[in-house]
Amino acid sequence: MKNIHIIGIGLIGGSFARDLRVVNPKMNIYGIDANPEHITQAVALGIIDAQSSLSDLKDADLVVVAVPVDIATTILPEVLDHIGKDTLVIDMGSTKKAICESVATHPNRRNFLACHPIAGTEFSGPGAAIKGLYAGKTNIICEVEKTTFKLQEKALELFKSIGMRIRYMDPVAHDKHIAYMSHLSHISSFMLGKTVIEKEKNERDIFDMAGSGFASTVRLAKSNPTTWTSIFKQNKENILETLEEYIENLTHFKQLMQEDNFEGVYTEMEQTNHIKEILKGLE
Amino acid sequence: MKNIHIIGIGLIGGSFARDLRVVNPKMNIYGIDANPEHITQAVALGIIDAQSSLSDLKDADLVVVAVPVDIATTILPEVLDHIGKDTLVIDMGSTKKAICESVATHPNRRNFLACHPIAGTEFSGPGAAIKGLYAGKTNIICEVEKTTFKLQEKALELFKSIGMRIRYMDPVAHDKHIAYMSHLSHISSFMLGKTVIEKEKNERDIFDMAGSGFASTVRLAKSNPTTWTSIFKQNKENILETLEEYIENLTHFKQLMQEDNFEGVYTEMEQTNHIKEILKGLE
Repeated sequence: MKNIHIIGIGLIGGSFARDLRVVNPKMNIYGIDANPEHITQAVALGIIDAQSSLSDLKDADLVVVAVPVDIATTILPEVLDHIGKDTLVIDMGSTKKAICESVATHPNRRNFLACHPIAGTEFSGPGAAIKGLYAGKTNIICEVEKTTFKLQEKALELFKSIGMRIRYMDPVAHDKHIAYMSHLSHISSFMLGKTVIEKEKNERDIFDMAGSGFASTVRLAKSNPTTWTSIFKQNKENILETLEEYIENLTHFKQLMQEDNFEGVYTEMEQTNHIKEILKGLE
Repeated sequence: MKNIHIIGIGLIGGSFARDLRVVNPKMNIYGIDANPEHITQAVALGIIDAQSSLSDLKDADLVVVAVPVDIATTILPEVLDHIGKDTLVIDMGSTKKAICESVATHPNRRNFLACHPIAGTEFSGPGAAIKGLYAGKTNIICEVEKTTFKLQEKALELFKSIGMRIRYMDPVAHDKHIAYMSHLSHISSFMLGKTVIEKEKNERDIFDMAGSGFASTVRLAKSNPTTWTSIFKQNKENILETLEEYIENLTHFKQLMQEDNFEGVYTEMEQTNHIKEILKGLE
């Protein structure tokens, strides 16, 4: 691979570019971004070599689409319009159904591989791009059979070279499960932050009382609102289901406390401690 | 200080013992714990030198009470019954009102200093005790004026020696604010863990989809149920208030999504991003 174009030079696209450059310093890495400042910054940081545009994609070996998911569904068909015969196009969005649908009937569908690397931080923009973000992380690939075999192989080799492990899943199952495993955490964290900020807004000193536990639980409330609004929009039905269940569980916990049923409160927590085994090795 | 007795040799008491030993390797550190295995383990790990009992406290320079808060309210008066004239007694509980009340009329009240070090991890028991847990952390001291001045000074010197900074607060304000800054996070995290485990219990592979964001948000769901049941019991009214507000905020967010008001969803998140500045330097 020689010519790489990254569309969306933020945390996700920028970190991917940084890892690619380590693996192959001779690659030409180009950037496309709606925000001109992102381009300037990404060049200054050495993340990309230069700006490009959709009309340059015919010579691309790889196009990485790392934009908010609602923009991805618009831009992906345009990208597929512009690429060459052997260009591999991947996306990195946190939803997969709408993205796969957006290119389903495109004549160049077989050049596209739908991906969701489970990696990120709460920060955003080119300044947040870091080396090694993807090492040891899972990359969920959807509808692999719809990508031409040669490009599948190329993609797998690339992911392997930056240390990712692969899981295959259909887009509907992906969106359903990721609502529980990622999207709900963001809402629980944003609303925790909101609850505390609202209550304590006039008592700035109080934030001295914040410990590492609060910081950890509220960390995702620092995430980019544009990225997450588009995810919540695209995965609305699944997320509403998780949110409903979460609110029910919280309400039940509240009732146990109101009834002074602290044996019940204990049991709720003791049964959830099981998360220890589930997450073993993740941190 | 020569003779230290730690009552409750878990994460909190054990880590404190480890820090004391670094500061003064000549201290004799004794342990009292309802669980005989904790004593064996703490001796084996070098956290304490030997087991002691309440009847040994008359020669103690310092007694640290680091047991679940409902046990603290029972044991503290007994500890004060047994100590010598110059013994300093501190507790480390996450609630302060009930603990201060439990010793309010004790003849040795002035030997006691009510503390809440904002420090911890999601683990428990002597095996979880780590060096340096308290360095750079805040220690909230309540009703400082009710402790004899000489023992206040002794305590402050000790906290300073292990790197803690001090905040003074009254017990009622402490319990109100800590409900937002710590206790609510634990419930939000436990119920997030419950929601995900319930949904995904038959699909173990799905947990491969967990990323660092989920892990961070659900981390506190690994916490000790005994410790936290007693905190929830003692701070019930304050916690119910925070929980009510949290559920209201989540329900409002759900409604915005149901109404396709994604501008509203964006605004909710954008306003909460402010947590970045608030928590700066905490992680």
